[in-house]
Amino acid sequence: MKLDDLPTPALVLDRHTLSANTSAMTERMRRHDVRLRPHMKTAKSAEVARLALKDNFGGITVSTLREAEYFLQHGIADITYAVGMVAGRLDAAAALNARGADLKIITDSVDAGRAIAAHGATHKVLIELDTGDRRGGVAPNGPALLEIADILNEAAAVTLVGVLTHAGQSYECRDSEAIAAVAEEERAGAVLAAERLRAEGLPCPVVSVGSTPTAMFARDLSGVTEMRPGVYMFCDLFQAGIGVCRREDIAVSVLASVIGHRRGDNVILIDAGALALSKDRSTAELPEDCGYGIVCNAETGEPLSDLRVQAVNQEHGFVTADQPVPFDALPIGAKVRVLPNHACMTAAAYDCYHVVSGGTEVIATWPRCNGW
Amino acid sequence: MKLDDLPTPALVLDRHTLSANTSAMTERMRRHDVRLRPHMKTAKSAEVARLALKDNFGGITVSTLREAEYFLQHGIADITYAVGMVAGRLDAAAALNARGADLKIITDSVDAGRAIAAHGATHKVLIELDTGDRRGGVAPNGPALLEIADILNEAAAVTLVGVLTHAGQSYECRDSEAIAAVAEEERAGAVLAAERLRAEGLPCPVVSVGSTPTAMFARDLSGVTEMRPGVYMFCDLFQAGIGVCRREDIAVSVLASVIGHRRGDNVILIDAGALALSKDRSTAELPEDCGYGIVCNAETGEPLSDLRVQAVNQEHGFVTADQPVPFDALPIGAKVRVLPNHACMTAAAYDCYHVVSGGTEVIATWPRCNGW
Repeated sequence: MKLDDLPTPALVLDRHTLSANTSAMTERMRRHDVRLRPHMKTAKSAEVARLALKDNFGGITVSTLREAEYFLQHGIADITYAVGMVAGRLDAAAALNARGADLKIITDSVDAGRAIAAHGATHKVLIELDTGDRRGGVAPNGPALLEIADILNEAAAVTLVGVLTHAGQSYECRDSEAIAAVAEEERAGAVLAAERLRAEGLPCPVVSVGSTPTAMFARDLSGVTEMRPGVYMFCDLFQAGIGVCRREDIAVSVLASVIGHRRGDNVILIDAGALALSKDRSTAELPEDCGYGIVCNAETGEPLSDLRVQAVNQEHGFVTADQPVPFDALPIGAKVRVLPNHACMTAAAYDCYHVVSGGTEVIATWPRCNGW
Repeated sequence: MKLDDLPTPALVLDRHTLSANTSAMTERMRRHDVRLRPHMKTAKSAEVARLALKDNFGGITVSTLREAEYFLQHGIADITYAVGMVAGRLDAAAALNARGADLKIITDSVDAGRAIAAHGATHKVLIELDTGDRRGGVAPNGPALLEIADILNEAAAVTLVGVLTHAGQSYECRDSEAIAAVAEEERAGAVLAAERLRAEGLPCPVVSVGSTPTAMFARDLSGVTEMRPGVYMFCDLFQAGIGVCRREDIAVSVLASVIGHRRGDNVILIDAGALALSKDRSTAELPEDCGYGIVCNAETGEPLSDLRVQAVNQEHGFVTADQPVPFDALPIGAKVRVLPNHACMTAAAYDCYHVVSGGTEVIATWPRCNGW
């Protein structure tokens, strides 16, 4: 089957680019002597996980328990569920462990720590740290860290395995220098917390950090044991916009059909709209605003001059450019590919990837694990 | 099962509110003596369609051929596919008709009209009109209307069944007076086009218009034969913000769990983030910006003072308020319900609805038909 035979919109994944991205990150982490625990929240695919885990230790990160269940079914047992645990999910976590998972859960709360300790089932737990992202996490230098650690360490069925942080503020950086500084904040905070635990005689074998930007530009990862980047596998226009990748490193795109011409408005309508692309506008904050995506040649994947999706309705994308739009080169029925602002958001609308490898031949269809 | 037993995030649909919304629209269209052809792009559910079709003629509107296939499987044959047809989809449309569908397709293009005429299979076609939305559609008073109509009318296998328009510019209105004016633009344009076709001896039995705002506030629908609103079934914060409904008319919400407290930032973290709520920010343009959603009591569905989801990461929602956030009333593990900005976008992330009827008992699970 060829790309041209696919009903549109469809999600296209270039295995050649994907594989280059996963190999480069594997090599980067090896140079740092840090274990790579890829975050599967972007890809949500066992086939992508296999590529990401090649030459790595075999552990992954997930953002939902449904992902954990899916990856366990596909033979991946070493899983860190990197969203704060609540009491109501402990039974589900224990059930996964009973079926062979080696699940690590996280908490940043005394109350949740007590609930984990009281649950009775065996749980491996990391304490979540805030190293500047201001999302989840306790302060590496504050009292809650030790309080939670004590609660967990005293529970017979619980194993305190370490600390975990995500420097999400790296997404606010605009160059590699700034990202390197955030990477050092992330490292330093995590290592400080680990040292404080160890100084109290508490176990802390795992020091887990990471985001794609900090994984890409960290200079020194001393004391860190693992990193958890995710979007590096696919890359996207936002990552390209902050200098983390090049546009040609973007492995996912949305195949779309031209469905209308508005010559008077210099607009081409495509059948990839708000559902097919997502309403993510993260590039709006960057020097080059990519609208809802950059429009490329369907066969080569190369950008078509400066065509971008400027607006979206549910099933309509409005493509325009500063220059005259090439209506004749893109007649109704013609295909294009759209590079996404944010791969995690765009991919979530699809139940599978149509896989190519640098060409237009669809060599495989890989399912995704969506929802909760 | 109770709402409290559901894993979160989960999509909740209140059948009592839904039913009141569908009955009110049915009654409104009956008063106008216009057929209601509900647009199923929001709900994408056979069970919701059954309620929307109660006391109506039985035809629906869809936004994808996958929806058409799904609804046909569920016994609904009279379907208008209201996105511009392209040659590559004609075989799929014909296959649906061969399986019993009575599909109406639309076009606004001479080229697509020629492709439909040349296809050979029987097709029923509406000509798409632009009555101010500047998306798809030919001008009601321009030459393309008659040119396309002639092409279609001369093809033996094609039946020209009328004209269709969607006054999407009604979403830019901020009060009922402005919406009523758009409704009149929509009606007048469609009726003009129909009269021009009939004056040429061309058939035009169907004059199809509609959006939820124009359906709600149209004063006169003379000459119109059917309306195609969709989001009125569920309503959402955007529709409430432009005066089309009240907040208490919103039938869908996202059940979420509190997963973290950031007392220093006056922020509660919930497990409904960008994927669970969508990144739709349509209320940002309205007098009351609802962030990514309004936070309500999980049991009653009543808004919790002025709590709103201010920011989202993939699986994290950041809930805050101008007043101090009630941390003690919302401990970690507590449940809330979030009203969406845009029901079509939010619902698309879920594979089913958990149905309640004014209470907390989950009385049914209704699947959705997502994707393409």
